Amino acid sequence: MPENQHVGVVGVGQMGMAVAKRLLERGYAVHTRDIRADADAEAREAGATVCDSPAALAAACRVVVTLVVNEDQTEDVVFGARGVAETLGSDSVLMVSSTVSPTFIESLATRLAERGLAMLDAPMSGGPARARAGTISMMIAGPDAAMERAGDALETLSNARFAMSARPGDGARMKLVNNMLAGVNLAGSCEAMALGVRLGLDPQRIFDVVMASSGGSWIFGDRMPRVLSGDYRPRAAATLLTKDVSLALGAAREAGFPAPVAAAALQVFLATVALGHGAEDDAALVKFFQSLTGIALPERSS
Amino acid sequence: MPENQHVGVVGVGQMGMAVAKRLLERGYAVHTRDIRADADAEAREAGATVCDSPAALAAACRVVVTLVVNEDQTEDVVFGARGVAETLGSDSVLMVSSTVSPTFIESLATRLAERGLAMLDAPMSGGPARARAGTISMMIAGPDAAMERAGDALETLSNARFAMSARPGDGARMKLVNNMLAGVNLAGSCEAMALGVRLGLDPQRIFDVVMASSGGSWIFGDRMPRVLSGDYRPRAAATLLTKDVSLALGAAREAGFPAPVAAAALQVFLATVALGHGAEDDAALVKFFQSLTGIALPERSS
Repeated sequence: MPENQHVGVVGVGQMGMAVAKRLLERGYAVHTRDIRADADAEAREAGATVCDSPAALAAACRVVVTLVVNEDQTEDVVFGARGVAETLGSDSVLMVSSTVSPTFIESLATRLAERGLAMLDAPMSGGPARARAGTISMMIAGPDAAMERAGDALETLSNARFAMSARPGDGARMKLVNNMLAGVNLAGSCEAMALGVRLGLDPQRIFDVVMASSGGSWIFGDRMPRVLSGDYRPRAAATLLTKDVSLALGAAREAGFPAPVAAAALQVFLATVALGHGAEDDAALVKFFQSLTGIALPERSS
Repeated sequence: MPENQHVGVVGVGQMGMAVAKRLLERGYAVHTRDIRADADAEAREAGATVCDSPAALAAACRVVVTLVVNEDQTEDVVFGARGVAETLGSDSVLMVSSTVSPTFIESLATRLAERGLAMLDAPMSGGPARARAGTISMMIAGPDAAMERAGDALETLSNARFAMSARPGDGARMKLVNNMLAGVNLAGSCEAMALGVRLGLDPQRIFDVVMASSGGSWIFGDRMPRVLSGDYRPRAAATLLTKDVSLALGAAREAGFPAPVAAAALQVFLATVALGHGAEDDAALVKFFQSLTGIALPERSS
C-alpha cells in the first residue's frame, strides 16, 4: 500500500468511527487515537491501528483527520503534549473536521504555517450514517497544495465536496451558517408540531401535510419521525446543535450581525438542555414545548 | 353538463384565477366574482361567466370556493349584502379556501349551519403555479356530506388532499401551523444567507452547500434563487406570510402557547414590510439584514 494511503483519525466518536470505518472499507491503512478504551477496542476490531498519542499517529500518516468534540480538545490534540504538530510531516496534511469557530481555525492555520505544516479547514455535514456511506457533505477551505495531498481521502469520504476558498476559516464559516439554519428549522419544526398538537391536530397528519406543503425541511423530515415514534435515543444529541448555533451566533456577533431568529432558536435549545434533555436526540426540543403546555406526545412502544 | 359541474370562484386574484383556470380547463362551468374590472376581464376571456354579486354566483353553483384576501372580505362575501348565504342552495357547499383564523372559521360554520347551509374549511398550500396544475395541497375539515358534495371539484383541484377532521377550523389550524413553519424557515434562510455573505462567503456557494446539507428546506430552495438573481418581483408578496404568521401567533396566544421562534420570525417580516418591501416577493426578507449590515447582494441583470 502506498505511503499516502495511511490516514489517521483522531477522535473516534460517532462521526470519527464512521469515517475510520469508511476508510478501512475502501482499503486505507487507518490509524486511530481516542482517550476512551471502548472506542479503541471498536476501532481495533474494525481493523485500525490504535495509537497511544496524536504524535504517534501523525508520525505514521500523510493525512490526519481530527474529529474531536470541540476547540479545547482540538487545541490539545494538535498543540498539546504529544500532539499532532510534534511529528506531522512537512508533506503531510492535517484536516480539522470538528465544528469549531472560524477564528479558532485561523489561529490553528497561522501557527501550523509558522512550522511549515499544511492544514485544511474541512467540516462535515450529514451525520454518521452518511459518513459511513461516503455521501456526507464537506466544506473545504485551504491552500491548493493541501487539497491535493488530501484529495484521495476526500474523494473517499464525500461525494458532495464544496471547495470554499483558500482562506482557512471559510469551511467553518459555511458549516456554522448551515448549522445555524438547521437549528432554526429544527426549533421551528418542534414549535410548529407542538402547536399543532396543542390545537388538537393529529401529529401524524401534521407530519404528512407539512411534508407535502411549504413548511417542509430536511431536518423536519429527518427528526419528526422520532417525535412520532416517541424515540429520543440520540442520533444527534441536543447539546451538539446547541453548540453549533452558539458558535454561529458568536461569529455573527463578532461581525456586528444581528440574528434574531437564530437567537430565539438558541433559547429553545438552551431551555431543552436546561430541562435535562441534553443527552437525548435533538428532536427532544419538542419536549420544551410539552413542559410549557402539557401536550400529549406519542410515547415509545416497548 | 350536469348541474354539479357548476363551480363558483369568489376572488380571482393570483390563487383564485389559477383555480378558475384549472377548473375551466377540466371542463367545469366556472362562475367568477371579483371587484376588480381587470380580474373580470381576464376571467371572461378564459371562459368564465362573470357574476355581479356573490349571491348571483351562489345561485348558479353547487360548489362555491372563496379565495379573497382576508377575514373581512370573506365575511362580506358570505354574509354581506348580496352575499353567498342569501342564495346558496341547501344541497350546495361553500368552500372557504383563504387563510383565515380557526375562530373565524368556527363562527362562519356555526352561522351557516343555523341556516342549514354546508361549509368546508379547505385552505390550500403551494401557490398559483401548483394550483394551475392541480398539484396544490389542501387541508380539508368539515362534515362528510359536505366533502362528498365537493368531491369532484376537490379531486380536480388537488392531488394532495388531507382530510383533517369533521371539525371546521382544523383546516385553518393546519394551514396556520404549516405557514408559521414556512415563515420561520424563510426568515431563518434569509438570516443565514445574509450572515454568510457578511462573513465573506459566496451566495451561490452558500446555496449549493445548504441544499446538500442539513439546513435545506422547501422554502430555501424555492426562494433563495430569487436572492441569487436579485429578482424580487412578487410571486408571493411579503405581506402574505406576514399575515399568516400573525394569525398563527394569534391562535397560539389564544391557546396559551408560547412560540418564541415564530415570534422572532414575525419581527423580521414586520421589519421588512416597515422598510417598504411589503409588495415585493417575500425573499426580500434578506433586505432587512442588508439594511442593517450593508452587505452586497446580487442585483438583477437588466
